[in-house]
Amino acid sequence: MRMAPDIRVCGDEIYALAAALYPICRSITGNGVRETLRLLGRHVDLTVVEVPSGTAVFDWTVPKEWNLRAAHITSSRGERVVDVARSNLHVVNYSTPVRAKMSLGELRPHLHALPAQPDLIPYRTTYYEPSWGFCLAHAQLMDLPEDTYDVVIDASLEVGSLTYGEYFKRGETDEEILLSSHICHPSLANDNCSGLAVLALLAAELSRRRTQYSYRFLFAPGTIGAIAWLAHNQQGAAKRIKHGLIVSNVGDGGGPTYKKSRRGNALVDRAAAHVLAHSGLEQQRILDYSPYGYDERQYCSPGFDLAVGSLQRSCWGTFPQYHTSADNLDFIRPEHLARSLGLVSEILDVLEGDVRYRNLSPFCEPQLGKRGLYDTTSGKQSQAYRIGLLWVLNLSDGAHSLLDIAERSGLPFSAISEAAERLRVAGLLEPVSPG
Amino acid sequence: MRMAPDIRVCGDEIYALAAALYPICRSITGNGVRETLRLLGRHVDLTVVEVPSGTAVFDWTVPKEWNLRAAHITSSRGERVVDVARSNLHVVNYSTPVRAKMSLGELRPHLHALPAQPDLIPYRTTYYEPSWGFCLAHAQLMDLPEDTYDVVIDASLEVGSLTYGEYFKRGETDEEILLSSHICHPSLANDNCSGLAVLALLAAELSRRRTQYSYRFLFAPGTIGAIAWLAHNQQGAAKRIKHGLIVSNVGDGGGPTYKKSRRGNALVDRAAAHVLAHSGLEQQRILDYSPYGYDERQYCSPGFDLAVGSLQRSCWGTFPQYHTSADNLDFIRPEHLARSLGLVSEILDVLEGDVRYRNLSPFCEPQLGKRGLYDTTSGKQSQAYRIGLLWVLNLSDGAHSLLDIAERSGLPFSAISEAAERLRVAGLLEPVSPG
Amino acid sequence: MRMAPDIRVCGDEIYALAAALYPICRSITGNGVRETLRLLGRHVDLTVVEVPSGTAVFDWTVPKEWNLRAAHITSSRGERVVDVARSNLHVVNYSTPVRAKMSLGELRPHLHALPAQPDLIPYRTTYYEPSWGFCLAHAQLMDLPEDTYDVVIDASLEVGSLTYGEYFKRGETDEEILLSSHICHPSLANDNCSGLAVLALLAAELSRRRTQYSYRFLFAPGTIGAIAWLAHNQQGAAKRIKHGLIVSNVGDGGGPTYKKSRRGNALVDRAAAHVLAHSGLEQQRILDYSPYGYDERQYCSPGFDLAVGSLQRSCWGTFPQYHTSADNLDFIRPEHLARSLGLVSEILDVLEGDVRYRNLSPFCEPQLGKRGLYDTTSGKQSQAYRIGLLWVLNLSDGAHSLLDIAERSGLPFSAISEAAERLRVAGLLEPVSPG
Repeated sequence: MRMAPDIRVCGDEIYALAAALYPICRSITGNGVRETLRLLGRHVDLTVVEVPSGTAVFDWTVPKEWNLRAAHITSSRGERVVDVARSNLHVVNYSTPVRAKMSLGELRPHLHALPAQPDLIPYRTTYYEPSWGFCLAHAQLMDLPEDTYDVVIDASLEVGSLTYGEYFKRGETDEEILLSSHICHPSLANDNCSGLAVLALLAAELSRRRTQYSYRFLFAPGTIGAIAWLAHNQQGAAKRIKHGLIVSNVGDGGGPTYKKSRRGNALVDRAAAHVLAHSGLEQQRILDYSPYGYDERQYCSPGFDLAVGSLQRSCWGTFPQYHTSADNLDFIRPEHLARSLGLVSEILDVLEGDVRYRNLSPFCEPQLGKRGLYDTTSGKQSQAYRIGLLWVLNLSDGAHSLLDIAERSGLPFSAISEAAERLRVAGLLEPVSPG
Repeated sequence: MRMAPDIRVCGDEIYALAAALYPICRSITGNGVRETLRLLGRHVDLTVVEVPSGTAVFDWTVPKEWNLRAAHITSSRGERVVDVARSNLHVVNYSTPVRAKMSLGELRPHLHALPAQPDLIPYRTTYYEPSWGFCLAHAQLMDLPEDTYDVVIDASLEVGSLTYGEYFKRGETDEEILLSSHICHPSLANDNCSGLAVLALLAAELSRRRTQYSYRFLFAPGTIGAIAWLAHNQQGAAKRIKHGLIVSNVGDGGGPTYKKSRRGNALVDRAAAHVLAHSGLEQQRILDYSPYGYDERQYCSPGFDLAVGSLQRSCWGTFPQYHTSADNLDFIRPEHLARSLGLVSEILDVLEGDVRYRNLSPFCEPQLGKRGLYDTTSGKQSQAYRIGLLWVLNLSDGAHSLLDIAERSGLPFSAISEAAERLRVAGLLEPVSPG
Repeated sequence: MRMAPDIRVCGDEIYALAAALYPICRSITGNGVRETLRLLGRHVDLTVVEVPSGTAVFDWTVPKEWNLRAAHITSSRGERVVDVARSNLHVVNYSTPVRAKMSLGELRPHLHALPAQPDLIPYRTTYYEPSWGFCLAHAQLMDLPEDTYDVVIDASLEVGSLTYGEYFKRGETDEEILLSSHICHPSLANDNCSGLAVLALLAAELSRRRTQYSYRFLFAPGTIGAIAWLAHNQQGAAKRIKHGLIVSNVGDGGGPTYKKSRRGNALVDRAAAHVLAHSGLEQQRILDYSPYGYDERQYCSPGFDLAVGSLQRSCWGTFPQYHTSADNLDFIRPEHLARSLGLVSEILDVLEGDVRYRNLSPFCEPQLGKRGLYDTTSGKQSQAYRIGLLWVLNLSDGAHSLLDIAERSGLPFSAISEAAERLRVAGLLEPVSPG
């Protein structure tokens, strides 16, 4: 039943997918998203949804579709000083079209750089305010000579649609677990080629398994994509979501970082905290909910208040590569991607396996030795295993779930779950129906 | 609506009032209290209440009124060795009248000094045990030669009354906030000319404002005065008190110190803890309730159990000047008095403004940019302001008050309150009626 | 009413009893237990219960009775290399009978030693798996020459019975406090001659007192003895147990260690934590419940879930002498035994005295001075005493018990209890009936 121990996806596969996604010029709409979904679709059977520009989604309106063909700044001597062909971070995302000659002084307000990180190109957007600009290294900006520059942003901003992809895997029950990753960022490897690749390969893996819950994987642009999905599913899937995770920044070696849902003590919050505490990863951190970050902002808005948390390795905004050209394919590693997928799997294992049992021999301890459960000669079984059996028996009163028992005992959920299974097979436990 | 930001009382005004009060020889009864109320009455319209000696007030009886005309010790050479004209701490407060010649040996049991602080005069009282005595510096006591001394305490202890003053300011509702300061101490500047002056000028300021709550300011002698007030108002005003603060020792630069009410998590306790935490004053401390201290002992007795806490800068008994002649006008400073008045105002602002709102656009975040609430170009608005808007929207589900939101977000109440006001004006929030 | 202050049992008496118990070869059944109960019975009137071999007790069956007459290993030269006459730890407890000649190689798998503690004899058992063996110092084991050894374990394992002893002292009510100590260990002084001796002399002391609760002292073999007792008393005494303590390892100078009941905040848990916190013993520790340890495992099984905690000095398994020949009469000291008995007595004093009062003068403070309760001239009474009076008055609203008041005030229960008694005598408090 448990997935984490025998997950077959290796880091190299995840990395290869992230690397294939990396060069694509994505935004909150446009062909970059479609191409990204096409690549993800090689691993899992995606449903692609197009939401037309102008569609009202709650308080928002789906914007015009943006597509970029070229963007460059050329000196009077014909030198391509800046060219989006070299890095798609060079253009401010959602820039309006431009074709003009201008002096450096006229151009300067449209140029963005990072004085404190002079060799890196920043990532900037202007989704909801018509504007245009270029991003470049501060060192290059400082060296730009006075000149008349030929400035071209060959982009279209036209009625079209917003695109997202979904994969749904039916489980034993209609209750759903949502796994969501934002698809709108261009060439930023950790934020969020890593999340897209991890979730796509996890979905592929899950598609081959029996699960208790149904699973919904969502690859949608940040904010407006999540809002569009929630608007379309308000009376349907959104009501069936019992637990959820936003997955992003999962390719670096920091963290892991789990940010709790607005509820603060939802099962997914406890499951993630438990898995992280037993991960052995020393930088693990649990953050309280705040209404700032990724799409948990929408899922945890007060009208929905869903039990959706957020899993990252390093937290957004806290690593120097964040939203710069240094968030590249060197920054993410196969082993970190694999470990992140393992962490998500372990959290799902807790959600899937967090059942309640009733001890059928509740008066005093049952004699484990006569059932072969408790090796009386020392050394053959670990102390942790024996204590796991005793904890499960002691707390299986119908009120404590296996996660309750894992939390109170300090033992990992997997050990508690294994002990419960052995006791069940031995006839000492029976499951308690949730009702 | 909020008072703290535009309070107009300056420290010099408060200090001048405290300095005018300082020389008066006060006790739990007598003309010193009346003179003190007369000076306070120049700032705020006080009602003065006289409770006759012998009146039963709960388990207590109002004592005879004490008035002191003179008290001195004169050597055989006619030297005024000790004279209350120099410091009214020289006489044990409520001493019975004395007029006698006696040897140093006879006089000695009646002389009180502080060996560990040899230059300071201690403050002593004998309200409920007929006795008399003088207080003097230990250094002077050690130098007193054998002699026959002429000892005079020209005091009267006669049927009269106990005096207290009240100022009542009507607000939108009958629910009251009590602000109380003990008036019984003679020349001790911090304890409690400071509290009397701060509250009098706060009352003057409040008299000019519209408030939600009604306010009751009480200037009464410690213990017996509070008991008398509670006995007279048991079925009336005492039942309308929703929140209260005892204010004393607010002129020095220590603390601030807030001692919680008996309830421990009353709104005033949370409001004060919040204001102190955001005060930037490094020595700020929150003390749990104990049934020892000032008049919170009476308000928090189990029959009343009112939500009354205590605000001080340095806590009584913890500073070396406490109850000595060193608690003089050099020990208190205008800037500390002004800051203390500001802290009380901020606490009142929280109590006045701690309402609940309902987010009228609760499904996903509303688009703040299109309403001009959320500047999309960076740098113009602070991150804290933006996050304040998001917190208010996220938690305004009718269940969380603004103080709840301030506590959870870690932002100051003033920022949360301002964000809520902007959102309300923008039509995104509506107040939830308390019922 | 309180016992701890005037307990008359001295450490020498307890030590003498422990020393008398020490040499006896005990096991979970057999004559060693009967002899132990005979010695305990000199101090307190025990009821001895015999449970026949083969009796089903919940999931367990009472085993055959084991009695040992002799056990030794003799070299070919006639030297008694190992002899249980020197230490009854030399034989694996519950060994099956053996009479054979064998080479060192054949004998070796039956020899147990501690390489890390080469001079100590370990303590081993094989209650439920037919087997045999000897325990010896690792240094001796290493020196054993190749030889043909004459190996004798002259033991009987026959149908008989399991024996336990009970002492019951009736109190004002039928509600019971259980005090239990395991009787199955052979020559281990701290584990558990100490516990048996402390409880026997405490029982003798209690037998001479009036108590609110009825008391049940149980001296039974570990695990199977507690299970047998619970099986026999499931519908009777077990239902009347309101609080309980397992007492063991109470002769050394470590700890004290209190392990909470499964409930975690039962009154006995709070009482023990309070007593330990005020004990002045610096190594005091409070452990959370775990289903591993002594007979609290049975009392706290989910079918019973009794409020039974465990008191030790050093915790089992944490001291180097544990389950070795170094747990001898030098390891336990009279002063530690006396102090342990005192700690148990103080816990019982809290349980007996944890009543609720109602302040009969609840509006403001009553005037203590006029009742002689509050000395107005300083120095005669301690500040702690005065504050105790105020705390009791302040919190005696019918909802707070004396332990609640002790916990909140930080004062010891004994001080709070004494203050309450004085206030009751002065007519200021009345007890609140539990119903």
